[in-house]
Amino acid sequence: MKPCTFCKIPKEEVIFETKHCYVLPDKYPISRYHLLVVPKKHYAGIAEIPDKELFDIIKTIKKMEKKMIEKLKVNGIDLRQNYRPFVPEGKLRKSHIHFHLIPRGFEDLVYKTQGKAKRGELSEKELRRLKEVLG
Amino acid sequence: MKPCTFCKIPKEEVIFETKHCYVLPDKYPISRYHLLVVPKKHYAGIAEIPDKELFDIIKTIKKMEKKMIEKLKVNGIDLRQNYRPFVPEGKLRKSHIHFHLIPRGFEDLVYKTQGKAKRGELSEKELRRLKEVLG
Repeated sequence: MKPCTFCKIPKEEVIFETKHCYVLPDKYPISRYHLLVVPKKHYAGIAEIPDKELFDIIKTIKKMEKKMIEKLKVNGIDLRQNYRPFVPEGKLRKSHIHFHLIPRGFEDLVYKTQGKAKRGELSEKELRRLKEVLG
Repeated sequence: MKPCTFCKIPKEEVIFETKHCYVLPDKYPISRYHLLVVPKKHYAGIAEIPDKELFDIIKTIKKMEKKMIEKLKVNGIDLRQNYRPFVPEGKLRKSHIHFHLIPRGFEDLVYKTQGKAKRGELSEKELRRLKEVLG
């Protein structure tokens, strides 16, 4: 079995961190500044996360949404957490739980094109900017 | 302006309630037992919800996910919270924040068919069952 990539997130990818979770850009973004909030410990679903850690995670989501709206001028955000243990683990499914924060805009094509038009990893510069603005 | 329907949820629709939120079936379900977790107070986005109420909401989501998996034998759940203030308020967008809990199954068609195949309100019997099992 491959080691879990979310159990060993490289420091340089981390935009923000708390005692219990990391914030980092999604490697397969479906819109610009698509972020992930990932608990440090490996849990599969919300039901497994101890309350204290879960509160830390939801507070971090709240904080990130606030900053994205205020500082990145994001018009909307979709929060997503897909618990689908029946999908095989792989590039598109990690068993380590993670919450997506997906910026949305008026008449964007995020779901129509499944984000294909906007995919692409962040540049070094963009990553630096996120760390400055959200960190 | 029309009054907000989520500010006055009829008692008989409520499956479960806490000090700060209600759980009820979605009126436009995209899969069976598609539920909503709705704060009692009218907030537009996560960023506006006071921590105490937000903790109560996430604990309720956790509790519901646990019960749906254990008691309704749900195989997976997608959590969704769409903050899209740029979409006009209407049948398909409420400004009163709500969290979707959408049961998922192996190779279901929820997103492919946009749920059309499975739409339809719950019967009285199904609603009673949910109140028994999740309440």
